[in-house]
Amino acid sequence: MTKTHGTEDAGNLFAALPATPLGEERFDALLTQPGLRLERIVSTGQASPPGFWYDQVDAEWVVLLAGGASLRFADEATPRELVPGDWLYIAPRRRHRVERTSVEPPAVWLALHLGITPSRQG
Amino acid sequence: MTKTHGTEDAGNLFAALPATPLGEERFDALLTQPGLRLERIVSTGQASPPGFWYDQVDAEWVVLLAGGASLRFADEATPRELVPGDWLYIAPRRRHRVERTSVEPPAVWLALHLGITPSRQG
Repeated sequence: MTKTHGTEDAGNLFAALPATPLGEERFDALLTQPGLRLERIVSTGQASPPGFWYDQVDAEWVVLLAGGASLRFADEATPRELVPGDWLYIAPRRRHRVERTSVEPPAVWLALHLGITPSRQG
Repeated sequence: MTKTHGTEDAGNLFAALPATPLGEERFDALLTQPGLRLERIVSTGQASPPGFWYDQVDAEWVVLLAGGASLRFADEATPRELVPGDWLYIAPRRRHRVERTSVEPPAVWLALHLGITPSRQG
């Protein structure tokens, strides 16, 4: 099976967290294969721009592991408030946006992107 | 894309943890697709039987999210002591065993099995 790592065979999801808020979210690839990308995302207060909705061709399974966040689906009236351990399956083309992420502690996500799109998208 | 859930589109990895040690490890399927199975594993003191080594055809990416555990690779002299957040990529056919899992708190794992084997195997 073809496999490309980020960089390592092992690591800690809570290591190398930023000491201060980041201007942008940080993405660390953990595992990349055809049709699959696993990554850690660290958010420090970022949110989707006003009016912006992710509309992904690929499916995504995502879990919040630390911090807090609020995620809204376009087909739901209110955002889902996420606490550590909360996971969501986001079906392809199900529009969603991140309303809020915590700053301290940072919001640490593990996201599994599933599909055929070769490069990062949302 | 064909997709079969465990049961839900959302949940919490730390919910429904056992109040008392379980006789066996608990497995909850979170996402199942051809060539992929994502599952939560809750261990409460279980370990691989003496002399037993997992020898998996499929690759596995696994992270310990709560509790403690000790995992040994056959090609390494000493076990790896895992703390929450520690993840490992286990290449196909890389023999390994679980030397120890914590009882209280339980050891909560998230395991991503990658390959072609349709049913559960270690």
